[in-house]
Amino acid sequence: MSTSTPTAQAQAWLDRFDAALQRRDIAAAVALFGPDCYWRDLVSFTWNICTQESPAQIRAMLAARLDDVAPSNWRVTGDATTTDGVTEAWFSFETRVSRGKGLLRLKDDGLAWTLLTTMVELKGFEEKTGEHRVAGAEHGVHKGRKSWGEQRAEELATMGYSQQPDVVVIGGGQGGIALGARLRRLDVSTIIVEKNARAGDSWRRRYKSLCLHDPVWYDHLPYLNFPDDWPVFSPKDKIGDWLEAYTKIMELNYWGSTTATHCRYDEGAGRWEVVVDRAGQAVTLRPKELVIALGVSGYANVPKIAGAETFVGDQHHSSKHPGPEPYLGKKAVVLGSNNSAHDICAALWEAGVDVTMVQRSSTHIAPSKALMELALGGLYSEQALKAGIDHHKGDLIFASVPYKIMHSFHIPVYEEMKRREAELYGRLEKAGFMLDFGADGSGLFMKYLRRGSGYYIDVGACELVANGSIKLKSNVNIERINPKSVTLTDGSELPADLLVYATGYGSMNRWLADLISPATADQLGKVWGLGSDTPKDPGPWEGELRNMWKPTQVPHLWVHGGNLHQSRHYSQFLSLQLKARLAGLPTPVYGQAAVHHTS
Amino acid sequence: MSTSTPTAQAQAWLDRFDAALQRRDIAAAVALFGPDCYWRDLVSFTWNICTQESPAQIRAMLAARLDDVAPSNWRVTGDATTTDGVTEAWFSFETRVSRGKGLLRLKDDGLAWTLLTTMVELKGFEEKTGEHRVAGAEHGVHKGRKSWGEQRAEELATMGYSQQPDVVVIGGGQGGIALGARLRRLDVSTIIVEKNARAGDSWRRRYKSLCLHDPVWYDHLPYLNFPDDWPVFSPKDKIGDWLEAYTKIMELNYWGSTTATHCRYDEGAGRWEVVVDRAGQAVTLRPKELVIALGVSGYANVPKIAGAETFVGDQHHSSKHPGPEPYLGKKAVVLGSNNSAHDICAALWEAGVDVTMVQRSSTHIAPSKALMELALGGLYSEQALKAGIDHHKGDLIFASVPYKIMHSFHIPVYEEMKRREAELYGRLEKAGFMLDFGADGSGLFMKYLRRGSGYYIDVGACELVANGSIKLKSNVNIERINPKSVTLTDGSELPADLLVYATGYGSMNRWLADLISPATADQLGKVWGLGSDTPKDPGPWEGELRNMWKPTQVPHLWVHGGNLHQSRHYSQFLSLQLKARLAGLPTPVYGQAAVHHTS
Repeated sequence: MSTSTPTAQAQAWLDRFDAALQRRDIAAAVALFGPDCYWRDLVSFTWNICTQESPAQIRAMLAARLDDVAPSNWRVTGDATTTDGVTEAWFSFETRVSRGKGLLRLKDDGLAWTLLTTMVELKGFEEKTGEHRVAGAEHGVHKGRKSWGEQRAEELATMGYSQQPDVVVIGGGQGGIALGARLRRLDVSTIIVEKNARAGDSWRRRYKSLCLHDPVWYDHLPYLNFPDDWPVFSPKDKIGDWLEAYTKIMELNYWGSTTATHCRYDEGAGRWEVVVDRAGQAVTLRPKELVIALGVSGYANVPKIAGAETFVGDQHHSSKHPGPEPYLGKKAVVLGSNNSAHDICAALWEAGVDVTMVQRSSTHIAPSKALMELALGGLYSEQALKAGIDHHKGDLIFASVPYKIMHSFHIPVYEEMKRREAELYGRLEKAGFMLDFGADGSGLFMKYLRRGSGYYIDVGACELVANGSIKLKSNVNIERINPKSVTLTDGSELPADLLVYATGYGSMNRWLADLISPATADQLGKVWGLGSDTPKDPGPWEGELRNMWKPTQVPHLWVHGGNLHQSRHYSQFLSLQLKARLAGLPTPVYGQAAVHHTS
Repeated sequence: MSTSTPTAQAQAWLDRFDAALQRRDIAAAVALFGPDCYWRDLVSFTWNICTQESPAQIRAMLAARLDDVAPSNWRVTGDATTTDGVTEAWFSFETRVSRGKGLLRLKDDGLAWTLLTTMVELKGFEEKTGEHRVAGAEHGVHKGRKSWGEQRAEELATMGYSQQPDVVVIGGGQGGIALGARLRRLDVSTIIVEKNARAGDSWRRRYKSLCLHDPVWYDHLPYLNFPDDWPVFSPKDKIGDWLEAYTKIMELNYWGSTTATHCRYDEGAGRWEVVVDRAGQAVTLRPKELVIALGVSGYANVPKIAGAETFVGDQHHSSKHPGPEPYLGKKAVVLGSNNSAHDICAALWEAGVDVTMVQRSSTHIAPSKALMELALGGLYSEQALKAGIDHHKGDLIFASVPYKIMHSFHIPVYEEMKRREAELYGRLEKAGFMLDFGADGSGLFMKYLRRGSGYYIDVGACELVANGSIKLKSNVNIERINPKSVTLTDGSELPADLLVYATGYGSMNRWLADLISPATADQLGKVWGLGSDTPKDPGPWEGELRNMWKPTQVPHLWVHGGNLHQSRHYSQFLSLQLKARLAGLPTPVYGQAAVHHTS
């Protein structure tokens, strides 16, 4: 075996795997995995997003699914590589109803360590791209045909009125937009409902200094890359304008200035009733499938603090903060110490506002440059591009690391970050700032997945905290709000004309209590988090993000969202799940997650 | 030599060429070219767009330019290939002030047959892309900084008022837009002036059935490719929307609803005075350089026909034709037999209008499918992409064929087209349609370059002409227009409620007679055409398109335009010429063309 190439080894494994699956010999297929093994499947085998984390789990999944899936045609694509005893190979495969791509890792005993299978397209419902694109001009002429412009105008006039969409997406941020683009390609009629007037407003309306904290290579939307001069960290108005242009280019039915007021599922009709207020006009939409894309960071958490009603200055959640201009010469208190808190404090300081950050608990600090180089650079950077890893490949490599062991890859990254940034960390601690690196030292991205909070990607504010420009009160909370000050839990009092609650967001299912019913919100359960049994992410272990991009306990209700990377990548799998259902394909879900937490 | 690889042969040629140029040994450099040789230079050597068509011309150009250009570092890039005795190699090179790319063809005697040199970037003025892109977020914080949104708003408010642009582009179609995007990347402040309200309107306002006659692979704008599901032939409203989105994404200062009313060059100030009417407000712009991008097909030719003023129906040039709706049940006469005439006749017929085409002279017909496969497919198609030829490579291959011999490559293409489409051509002739294939049988593209007219890319209307659905009167002209009919030169009379002049366009310099002065229009001279001494393209031979994208006889005045391919590709060279001048680099022009014709 040692004389054969990595590619030949990988193909040999796939051939044996294929043969075992073809003859439905599950024991032989499972025997190709090592004792420490993971098979992550994105829709292809399970009509679900789930990871089998042992030979026994793989055996059970295959026993349930193999006959129906009928996989075949497993082929290594490109050249496999071997590094530190692990052979990594890209491959393509088919199921009865779909084509897919995957990534295989073999250990030096020749057995599989990780297997990723992902659905790329449904047979018979392929996107019309490349040589299969539409002609545009209909060659030949026939009486009465409509031009593209006429057809589009007719769609905009009738969809949601005399025509009903198959899918309604509530929330027109990056999540709704990316999903809308995918569904359009799949000929799924869709309306996206957004309370703001224009696509991109959910970025534009945030504080003035906001830039993306993730770099450009990580942030592409589906089908249309940013131009190659796009800033590394896109300013919020620029990304807003991009989203708006994208929405038009992709011909989305985007209903701005529209708020969903009530939804209910009509069992008899097999359709939802989604009542929306479209610029003052009530419209009832009747889609077959409903997607909630209101933002993982969308449902604002505002703590109830005694005396808040007596405050005479401005107080608002960070998501409503307009920027520093109205507060020149005033005194500001920002409650919280995560991304928004730091950004807002820095912008207030830049504008000459006296600002104090109130840090309630420890925070993970990841300096942007170190984070880009140590954590993201291998998959999303100019260097990655030069090494042949574009974001399509990066996304699949990213997806191929099972959540169960992901922290173990991150811990060394943050140990290196600690060494590299020792001086900054030392100065922050000296200023009283409480630091952490996550419950197990696995740093930023695991905190993002587990709880969606608890960190700041430092783009400059840490220096201001360290040198005292941004005043810091740490290990305290606000005990009481007075008309012109706040009293902290250590008894001290801070004068305040402005109070910003940079206090994060609640689980997305909370939107549903108002929109559908509290019972439905509970039926859906908590959204996001892995069940890691770390702060704000209670167990049991889930293996995947709760309720994201996959079937939920509420039939025909889906949750979509995440950062730009996730909105891009997972919209692929959500769109395929929706298309399959709308096309009437059987979609038996394997490993449907139970609900362990309601918020 | 026969044992070495094509790449080694090409590198050996470049090494000898480099050595000769380094020691300023012009005779030795010229000796590396065969007797039948062409060197086309796009700006790198000549600060011009020009082709040397013999060893003597190459010798003269080098004698004038070599010391100043100081070329070096000639390196084959990728693998050279040898086909039918011709070795073709891509290469990179430098000059004193720039970096470039080129394409070399050696004949089997080892001597150069064609050499293309093109400027890619000016040293010190590189576009900020890839790893050189801007950060977006300024890491670190400092007081008083402005956000991207604030800076952009300030630019939009001040540019053209308290700030003067370096360049004004008159005409905001694809040409102005593509050039604007290039100039933006080069940090050249620019305002684009467009009479229509929105970018894309020059497409949207044309007849309803219009689709691009060129395929998608040929039509990309700079920096941002169409998504991969874009129609092969883009409908006019869709390309309009794309241009509008592109203009916003590229952050162009695009002044819609603005008409240039008068321009004059202020020698004392070294700036133009461009008086514009911006939505009713007179504004004087003072750019250093002025670009006319009003469309090669922009200055409508309307023949003066006796009795036109007596016509009681609608009469208009094809560029003003609104589509068939207003004419249902009426009788239409379309004068002309080129692209617009056919498209308009077909759309009128589809809507049930009685329509007659009046063909004055013979027309070249190129069925779209055959044209795509035989003429464009090698460089611009899915097949080309699969063969590694994207539009960047396609553009350079296209540019590497000297105009002097271009027709010889096209003649066999159209001979094959004649064979393949014999049945259609036969039926058209039977219907009385007068066909041609160009003065020398070189077909569509040479007609486009020589005269910009004389052809129809058939997307269906020919069938309607052949089967009599579109009535045809050929080898006649309109002698006289009567209140409700036209009298043809054969004495026959056609009843008419609508008269469309699909009679083409005049030379772009005619715009300048009104905009600057008749003297300046004549000083600039005819625009477009090669001097091929074929119909509508009088000699002497020019070697390049007259006045396009290169220095003209009117200092600081430039002409830009063409189809989407040309707007994309040649905007690169025009933007570099403008940038060099604005940066104060010496730009001695070699081979400045004389003016032989004023219209």
